[in-house]
Amino acid sequence: MDKEIFLEDFNRISKIGWTKEFGVNREALNEFDIKVRNALIGELKKIGSSISFDDAGNIYGSLNENETNAIIIGSHMDSVPNGGRFDGMYGVIAGLNVLKNFHINGIRKNLMLVDFTNEEGSRWQPDLQGSGIATGVFDKEFIYSRIDRENKKFVDVLKASGFQGKEENRIKNLNPEHFIELHIEQGPVLEKEGYSIGIPYGIVTDIVDFYTFIGESNQAGPTPMNLRKDALVGASRFISEINEIAKKQTPNIVMTVGEINNIPNIYSVIPSIVKLKLDIRSPDQHLAYENASIVYEKAKCIAEDLGLTINKERGWALNTTLFDEDLIKKIEKACKELDLKYKHIYSWATHDAMYMNKITSTAMIMIPSHNGRSHTKEEFSSDEDMIAGLKVLKKVIDLI
Amino acid sequence: MDKEIFLEDFNRISKIGWTKEFGVNREALNEFDIKVRNALIGELKKIGSSISFDDAGNIYGSLNENETNAIIIGSHMDSVPNGGRFDGMYGVIAGLNVLKNFHINGIRKNLMLVDFTNEEGSRWQPDLQGSGIATGVFDKEFIYSRIDRENKKFVDVLKASGFQGKEENRIKNLNPEHFIELHIEQGPVLEKEGYSIGIPYGIVTDIVDFYTFIGESNQAGPTPMNLRKDALVGASRFISEINEIAKKQTPNIVMTVGEINNIPNIYSVIPSIVKLKLDIRSPDQHLAYENASIVYEKAKCIAEDLGLTINKERGWALNTTLFDEDLIKKIEKACKELDLKYKHIYSWATHDAMYMNKITSTAMIMIPSHNGRSHTKEEFSSDEDMIAGLKVLKKVIDLI
Repeated sequence: MDKEIFLEDFNRISKIGWTKEFGVNREALNEFDIKVRNALIGELKKIGSSISFDDAGNIYGSLNENETNAIIIGSHMDSVPNGGRFDGMYGVIAGLNVLKNFHINGIRKNLMLVDFTNEEGSRWQPDLQGSGIATGVFDKEFIYSRIDRENKKFVDVLKASGFQGKEENRIKNLNPEHFIELHIEQGPVLEKEGYSIGIPYGIVTDIVDFYTFIGESNQAGPTPMNLRKDALVGASRFISEINEIAKKQTPNIVMTVGEINNIPNIYSVIPSIVKLKLDIRSPDQHLAYENASIVYEKAKCIAEDLGLTINKERGWALNTTLFDEDLIKKIEKACKELDLKYKHIYSWATHDAMYMNKITSTAMIMIPSHNGRSHTKEEFSSDEDMIAGLKVLKKVIDLI
Repeated sequence: MDKEIFLEDFNRISKIGWTKEFGVNREALNEFDIKVRNALIGELKKIGSSISFDDAGNIYGSLNENETNAIIIGSHMDSVPNGGRFDGMYGVIAGLNVLKNFHINGIRKNLMLVDFTNEEGSRWQPDLQGSGIATGVFDKEFIYSRIDRENKKFVDVLKASGFQGKEENRIKNLNPEHFIELHIEQGPVLEKEGYSIGIPYGIVTDIVDFYTFIGESNQAGPTPMNLRKDALVGASRFISEINEIAKKQTPNIVMTVGEINNIPNIYSVIPSIVKLKLDIRSPDQHLAYENASIVYEKAKCIAEDLGLTINKERGWALNTTLFDEDLIKKIEKACKELDLKYKHIYSWATHDAMYMNKITSTAMIMIPSHNGRSHTKEEFSSDEDMIAGLKVLKKVIDLI
């Protein structure tokens, strides 16, 4: 019966803000995020759960009178623009389902459900704002002053939403026993290799460097090839080379240039400035930093060769997060008992579990993403895989 | 005395719409273009010149009663955004100076000065609109319906400017004898090699192809390097390789990617679509088309290698323009008589002379651009070089 309740809740709530053409548009605290928050609160009320908010707008629900020392489960319900239905939402609805099960069959553990605000960070940067505030990683004033594309401050939107609660309600003050986040893989490995469950050792190191290649803008026609200082040629050679460098180290590292800005970007003008962001991730922290240095040297060589100047700034760097070993073992045990094929992996994306890991024993449970697609309307996980993940979550809670 | 008058006129009028910080912002028919047009008309009135406009807003001035069968001199006064003071303006003010000389010393030839509308094409595309209409290359309705960034139609702005004249005033109807355009080189060759004057054989072939590389967007972290279809890696490899191909053929060809658009352009997302414009120019028409095919094959190989699909459309192609040989010989003779070091070159940028060449015997005279800079506030040609070019123009007119 849990299965039917879960699928009904998931299909109904995950479709809020969804269209076939554009996927999910449920950026933090927008109209659709407010709708899913209210839908969640509606479900929690039905089962007599307490409902509270902290000063980041995180939503907490519990069936227990004493909310301290709980096992926290949950994730986030916001999405990137044109995102998928499964990212984040799966973990929250699964957590809700565990509470519903307790409501029907009796409370077996001290559990608390959480929906974190603005995990994605697409509306206000940086990401993981809700968990960052709830765990004390972020300074509240800093997050409150962040502005979105329409120049709206986070604090103003939060206040208007009605979800601003008290600082004392932060998760950190509740001294939680554990945090378990159930999430889609967002990558292709589990499906490709035929596993039902992924058990992350932790979250990989993520270094983001901002590069600027500076050349000289000139009319494209009258400037001979040997007298050019073309910033885009420099950036292109750099992108090609780092791709080769990263490919040779598969599967230990990934390097991505997702964002590039070319100035002045006129077809008949040689580009003078190219700015790009290089994202390097590896479970091996040293390998990540070593590669960041190697490719910087490569960039300097390319710039020298082409008569360009180069500038590199470290955008940010998050070192490898390692989850709680005992909790990982319990997830492994749960998979074995349920006869589910599992694989130890790393999470190559950040999650709220990263900050929760700083204040309590934390782990994640992952399920396959079809074709590895995520942050797109094509994002998909099967009912079977979702139910398997939910079963593992329940079993782990019982094993704690 | 011509020299002082020229420099005074040039320095005064070319600075309209100029700031040190942003260069010249005198896009066609904007407030500053209107100001320079009125300044030009003011000067023409002082010397008793006729003043007329055609239906493209081109301005004509002549000291002769019979305006047919004239030698046309001039260029354009509009600029690109953040452009330089010399491009176009030099040819117009030099032409004005020849008329002023005739006014003072007596009319020796049937001359007509022209200022062409929207040569740059930055406000309304395509470029060369004034000369294109005046020579019958463009359909008037097509040009009239072009809209700028603010959705303003060319015809509406032209009407409001007061510069819309009659179709019968078009240059083509005056059956001109010659067209001579004095212009800055916009490239580094003359200065680098120590020449005062460049005599273009003509204007190079210009092929512009629109490429689209299509891959698959995914979360940057969880997608291993070997399972990616990164459109930006494909485009980058393409840009690097065409640069190498073009460099090997220096100075016979140039290839430029000035414009690139990366989708979705988010640092943490593998790019799914990259659109770019490839501009290929060569005096040798066959070499240009051959290279366009070679690099297309190269793009297909890269796409296949990376699992991308590719799309190529021909944006446009302008074949090589060859100027009048007799007129070129007269320019050469003028340089010799003036003891000026000259070089036969090609114009690697388009000019109004390209369309004028379709209706009359046409040639250009070019002077050095400091460091080859153009379409930027750093654009500069020395007084000495400007005066040398003016002298050649006058001598050529006397030789005709």
